[in-house]
Amino acid sequence: MVETIQWTGRGVVMIDQTRLPFEETYVTCRTYGEVADAIRGMVIRGAPAIGVAAAMGVALGVEAASAADLDNEVERICATLAATRPTAVNLFWAIGRMKKVYASMRGRPLEEIRARLVAEAQLVYREDIAINQAIGRHGAPLVPDGKTVLTHCNAGALATAGYGTALGVVRAAVEGGKKIDVFSDETRPFLQGARLTVWELQHDGIPATLITDNMAGHFLKSGRIGCVVVGADRIAANGDVANKIGTYGVAVLAKENGVPFFVAAPISTLDLTLASGSQIPIEQRPAAEVTHVFGTPVAPAGTAVENPAFDVTPSRYVSAIITERGVARAPYGESLGRLAAAPAQAG
Amino acid sequence: MVETIQWTGRGVVMIDQTRLPFEETYVTCRTYGEVADAIRGMVIRGAPAIGVAAAMGVALGVEAASAADLDNEVERICATLAATRPTAVNLFWAIGRMKKVYASMRGRPLEEIRARLVAEAQLVYREDIAINQAIGRHGAPLVPDGKTVLTHCNAGALATAGYGTALGVVRAAVEGGKKIDVFSDETRPFLQGARLTVWELQHDGIPATLITDNMAGHFLKSGRIGCVVVGADRIAANGDVANKIGTYGVAVLAKENGVPFFVAAPISTLDLTLASGSQIPIEQRPAAEVTHVFGTPVAPAGTAVENPAFDVTPSRYVSAIITERGVARAPYGESLGRLAAAPAQAG
Repeated sequence: MVETIQWTGRGVVMIDQTRLPFEETYVTCRTYGEVADAIRGMVIRGAPAIGVAAAMGVALGVEAASAADLDNEVERICATLAATRPTAVNLFWAIGRMKKVYASMRGRPLEEIRARLVAEAQLVYREDIAINQAIGRHGAPLVPDGKTVLTHCNAGALATAGYGTALGVVRAAVEGGKKIDVFSDETRPFLQGARLTVWELQHDGIPATLITDNMAGHFLKSGRIGCVVVGADRIAANGDVANKIGTYGVAVLAKENGVPFFVAAPISTLDLTLASGSQIPIEQRPAAEVTHVFGTPVAPAGTAVENPAFDVTPSRYVSAIITERGVARAPYGESLGRLAAAPAQAG
Repeated sequence: MVETIQWTGRGVVMIDQTRLPFEETYVTCRTYGEVADAIRGMVIRGAPAIGVAAAMGVALGVEAASAADLDNEVERICATLAATRPTAVNLFWAIGRMKKVYASMRGRPLEEIRARLVAEAQLVYREDIAINQAIGRHGAPLVPDGKTVLTHCNAGALATAGYGTALGVVRAAVEGGKKIDVFSDETRPFLQGARLTVWELQHDGIPATLITDNMAGHFLKSGRIGCVVVGADRIAANGDVANKIGTYGVAVLAKENGVPFFVAAPISTLDLTLASGSQIPIEQRPAAEVTHVFGTPVAPAGTAVENPAFDVTPSRYVSAIITERGVARAPYGESLGRLAAAPAQAG
């Protein structure tokens, strides 16, 4: 499998997800500003991967910072990275974690602080892979054997440090011997399903079929879909899930047809400070993503557009939330609170 | 407004809907075979427009036929046109109507038969416009004032001889003074919403906003959508509706959010020989429509694809079916039967 993101001696190296699957090119970010640009421009995307990138961005920033005004410099670095995208909470979680480590090191020699932050960023990376493998272990038993898994967007290795959340569940089910295949919504406007999910699954030899987003209902009604598994960008205390635009529609159609709808996400995706999903900020992205496909226009010039990048799925449509600490079910207020308070078991 | 299709001295002239909105080019079909190719290749599309094209195709075919073997020649012409696309019943309805006229003329001088069939094709065309205006009159009162109408695909002037079915309802509501705007699903894979609906509405000065198909649920949940209006390709006796892929999803999401879901279609779209929508044949179209957008690939080479061009919306999701003879509501078995038996009032 291709590496999504790596800490290297010459900077943070990311596979450029805006160019996949047609070009396998890598971007090297040498400054925290370049990491911020990469997140904003979706060179790297997916809530857990954004978290890893932000952690590495902080480490990169402090590596270049001078001792003179370090507190303010760290604030500036963190604020810049936090301003890149508003919805995925893993971004803020990772920045908060790095800030806490920095605070615990205040007053120590600069080289020591730098080394500690680099080590922490690398730990965030390694933990993420272990977390995804744990999500896979918890989720695999939920996947019906001999049926098709429907997924939306890309919650795979490319959306994480590796292995994937939703696709981690698929991988674990396949590794456990289940005979499944995957239907991937293409996921307009950015086409993460068509470009990234199909490509990832092809690499792993897992049978994948591409459909347009508006076909999901037809196939959910057909009986061939055993379950839906998606990732998440932020989960409120009541279990409402913000995820890639279109997730809500898939969830409603799954429920209407009696198909289980699973969300696979690390505990770091929980935002227990928000009572419900209506409080989750939804990013609006540029109109050109909708009016153009790889630079080719698909609508008349000057077309008015809405482009919310995420939607919120109320928890009543969610059959279960699969985390590295176990599977939460309704009532989510209770089950998520319990998991969040539990000791970590990943790794 | 641009003419979708016209009978002219030099053949059947159609605006090329595969090239809109970027090029306004016209295709002239001089033989029934060229008409069949135009339907198959979606130069002309939309159930009512396909019906008009087929009627004109029969007339064109008989104009070129010799008296020697006329019965068989008419059979061949009709069979060729009927084999172009399987789902929209208006195609078969129009061919059946032309066959009936031919049968009534059997034995008459060839020139007289030809003139009669040309006249009938032109009548199908003119009636279609009048029918759409009547659909608009019946439908306009159902459209909530001051809200947004959501539509899927293109059921506009371009899908008919003129004025449109779903967009006819929108036009009539606007002409009646209602302050509405339209959200248009882009309608992958063929992008009829992005390319045709937005373009048509811009021509008429009706405010239109383009969204990707997977955003429909988000906006139906938001409260700004007053109703959904779509067209239909075939309606079974129980009110189940075959329409462009994705319609089913929109219907379920509309019902889930308490938004009325209206189907606007001429009586010729009814197929009372089918008890339910499960009997409607669903056309499967080429994989390249999904894997490519205007020739640009959006997925890895060799990606497996499903491409059903239509889906079936069970009648329980349909708030009303708007026809030129009035508005049918559940139970549709009764209401549609009554409308089908009623005398025509269009024109």
